[in-house]
Amino acid sequence: MTVLESDYGKLLAKYKDLAVLQSTSAIVGWDMETKMPPRAIKLRSEQLAQLSQFQHRMITDAEIGTLLASIEKSPDYEGLPEVGKRNVHLIRKSYDEQTKLPEELVVETERQRSITIDVWKKAKAAKDFALFRPELEKIFELKKRAAEILMDVKKTASPYDALIDMFEPKITSDRIASVFDELRKNLVRIIGKCLGASSQPDVSVLRRNIPITIQEKISSSLADLIEYDVTSKNAGGRIDETEHPFTTGYYDDVRITTHYYENNVASSIYSVLHEGGHAKYEQGLRRDWMYQPVGSAPSYGFHESQSRFVENMVGRSTEFWQYYLPRLKTIVGGIFSDVGLDDVVGAVNAVKPSKIRTEADEVTYSLHIIIRFEIERDLFGGKITVPELPEVWNQKYLEYLGQRIDNDSEGVMQDTHWAGGDFGYFPSYALGNIYGGQILSKLNRDIPDWRNSIEKGSYRKTDEWLAKNIYSLGNLHDPLDLIRIITGEGINVGPFVEYLESKYSKLYGY
Amino acid sequence: MTVLESDYGKLLAKYKDLAVLQSTSAIVGWDMETKMPPRAIKLRSEQLAQLSQFQHRMITDAEIGTLLASIEKSPDYEGLPEVGKRNVHLIRKSYDEQTKLPEELVVETERQRSITIDVWKKAKAAKDFALFRPELEKIFELKKRAAEILMDVKKTASPYDALIDMFEPKITSDRIASVFDELRKNLVRIIGKCLGASSQPDVSVLRRNIPITIQEKISSSLADLIEYDVTSKNAGGRIDETEHPFTTGYYDDVRITTHYYENNVASSIYSVLHEGGHAKYEQGLRRDWMYQPVGSAPSYGFHESQSRFVENMVGRSTEFWQYYLPRLKTIVGGIFSDVGLDDVVGAVNAVKPSKIRTEADEVTYSLHIIIRFEIERDLFGGKITVPELPEVWNQKYLEYLGQRIDNDSEGVMQDTHWAGGDFGYFPSYALGNIYGGQILSKLNRDIPDWRNSIEKGSYRKTDEWLAKNIYSLGNLHDPLDLIRIITGEGINVGPFVEYLESKYSKLYGY
Repeated sequence: MTVLESDYGKLLAKYKDLAVLQSTSAIVGWDMETKMPPRAIKLRSEQLAQLSQFQHRMITDAEIGTLLASIEKSPDYEGLPEVGKRNVHLIRKSYDEQTKLPEELVVETERQRSITIDVWKKAKAAKDFALFRPELEKIFELKKRAAEILMDVKKTASPYDALIDMFEPKITSDRIASVFDELRKNLVRIIGKCLGASSQPDVSVLRRNIPITIQEKISSSLADLIEYDVTSKNAGGRIDETEHPFTTGYYDDVRITTHYYENNVASSIYSVLHEGGHAKYEQGLRRDWMYQPVGSAPSYGFHESQSRFVENMVGRSTEFWQYYLPRLKTIVGGIFSDVGLDDVVGAVNAVKPSKIRTEADEVTYSLHIIIRFEIERDLFGGKITVPELPEVWNQKYLEYLGQRIDNDSEGVMQDTHWAGGDFGYFPSYALGNIYGGQILSKLNRDIPDWRNSIEKGSYRKTDEWLAKNIYSLGNLHDPLDLIRIITGEGINVGPFVEYLESKYSKLYGY
Repeated sequence: MTVLESDYGKLLAKYKDLAVLQSTSAIVGWDMETKMPPRAIKLRSEQLAQLSQFQHRMITDAEIGTLLASIEKSPDYEGLPEVGKRNVHLIRKSYDEQTKLPEELVVETERQRSITIDVWKKAKAAKDFALFRPELEKIFELKKRAAEILMDVKKTASPYDALIDMFEPKITSDRIASVFDELRKNLVRIIGKCLGASSQPDVSVLRRNIPITIQEKISSSLADLIEYDVTSKNAGGRIDETEHPFTTGYYDDVRITTHYYENNVASSIYSVLHEGGHAKYEQGLRRDWMYQPVGSAPSYGFHESQSRFVENMVGRSTEFWQYYLPRLKTIVGGIFSDVGLDDVVGAVNAVKPSKIRTEADEVTYSLHIIIRFEIERDLFGGKITVPELPEVWNQKYLEYLGQRIDNDSEGVMQDTHWAGGDFGYFPSYALGNIYGGQILSKLNRDIPDWRNSIEKGSYRKTDEWLAKNIYSLGNLHDPLDLIRIITGEGINVGPFVEYLESKYSKLYGY
């Protein structure tokens, strides 16, 4: 064994420790949202703060620095396979970034996160931004400190760009601004046409009352359909209920959650499909890359492209409902006996500007994101302050979506992200839509009849294409490189807009 | 602040880190048994091995050694309050023990534990001791190595005594042997009288079919009765289902499990009461001792005394059933309408030697433990070997309990303890019965009418007595000292035997 091989082996062993610990944190975090007795919240924040402290120590372990230096200056370095070079690069990146963040800042941020989220929940329930504001300011100041440190390491143009890079490596806020600008113009046009169409879908069919025990059966049937195993003796997933749906876990233990509303069956159906898409990605990573940096998704945007693919491009398609509506009718008994294919496809694709991001349709959704991006950019750019957030928010909702915000709970306090300190995260949601459009266009070229198999209830062919072309590439490339490798072109709003145009012009007959 | 105060503060801060991490491990272990997707077992064993490695490093941190030395040699040491001295003593004890155990041995043991338990499950299902044997030998050899190291540190008379000391500090196998000898003779006598009585209880009433959803309601009502909160907005507990019932957690997050059998409602009732007793102990520890060594129970036997108090002395009493039978009838609908108080009290107290420890009645139970104690002692004493275990086991079951063991799944492989490397644990179960008898006798003296309040459905008065006299003393004393402080005498089989005599002579009319 050469020195390089030995050092590389040691480096990967160190990384494995980190990956194992992160997977532990994921379980502890999942438990907090799903099963934890309420009185345990303070103990839990101690547990999570400690785990994040350990992770920070592992990433910044001086021995990692020594191993990295030895590997990088080795005369054999160029001979390392591509995967090895990428692993070294990814560990180097997090090592450089995290060693610059003082442990005290990391631990304090983790602790403040728990507090701000806790206060956010109370403030949201009480519709009281003034209650939320001081804690939001604290987490914002902590993240600003981190962003300023990271800006130096990452050599980004601004602190905000450094935060974006944590979620979507190598993309800049300027690039996002120009992409979003093009996206916004197109969305506004399509929304206008939909709203102006003579016939509007009737969404009342989705409001029929479905008991939660029956909705749980719907969830299982959807998991079966996309081959996300939550029931067999070898299952690697599970579905639970939480206030806000999410996906968490690692390889053989990837869990999704949904939220059941008796009078809104579509809410859970699309949560299960959305989170199921995230879970499929995680479980489709190459097994031989487990415990390595390459054994992960390359960005939040890429992850989102896959959740939205399953949710929207599969789950809101006519072909899906052609297959699933009869099954759904069987599961729910007589409740949908009078509902036809066009009724349900129209209802689940109804375009209607609204106040709440998570309830937005596929077309207006990205406008919610663009608003958040612009606000974050101005907040970190010093153009606005935390106390001004409600005013700015309400102004933009009126301007972009025609919505008058009556209270901050349905306004600036609707999302958990800022309370959790996740500034820079939101752009990934809309970038996911854009990547998703490009990936769909490539899938259409590679397997022109993939929608036919969905219509027959078989997801296998589509799943295999996604596994081969996306999941199995893991984190071998940065997102902007990966989208080029998959589709042959850089980030491009065009295919997503074309997909929307083609779908909604048919649905709305414009 | 004196040097002593400063060092003591630092020592406690170190211990807090450990307590937080242990509480994290508890959650991860709980998840493995209750919620984990089956495919995750290998990942989970990596997670648990890592957490145990971290714990070992924390306990053996050289700075703890430095702080302990500085505190112990401080001229102000004698001025430390009793609690402070006890904390220092307990940290010193685990530091001395754990620093002697090589990290490699600790991690290897944790890894082998997961493997042996996994193979045990398969071997038990296949009734195949030969499959289990090689993995059992591995964990036994690892524990023997540890026991030999610990014997030197603890200065015990044998390696087995060093293992017992982990569960029941300062008690020796010789002392246990003499206590168990007295216990055995008395039990054999009482069993003989019960079996020889002219009228035997009819246990068939307990075999009536009760759907699991209804049994879940029974669990909640029992938790309510003993004021173990699993439902309120400030709940600090929960009840889930597992193959084998257990309790785990820390202060504000103490969880119990039960197992439901449709045709055996008593099984879950007594699991909930038993585990609920454990949970009450944990939640009754002094809040200002949280994160300190004194904020824990002094031994497994003491813990068991409390679980058995709630299960047997409360839950199998006439007074309990006087209150609970009408409530149970309401919960289960018409199923028990023909059942009278004497029927149910007779049935839940039926004495009948059996093969399976966890199904044993209150009288024969300790004989199961005595068998295991004798086997463990001989195994670590080199008088028998792992391959001989089935033969020795079967012989003793025939001799002590008159049971002919047909296969090893209902014999030597019935328990998980040895698979998990928990040699030395079993004696605590019977010691718990003995402590419990002594504590009951003291309770009878202090509150002669406590059973009347149980009859009225109020556990409060009894609970407060237990909290004041047992729970709140935490780990301030070793178990043999604590029993003397509580009852005024050292360990004594008498009260437990008198309790059984008085109860069973009435029940069986002998």
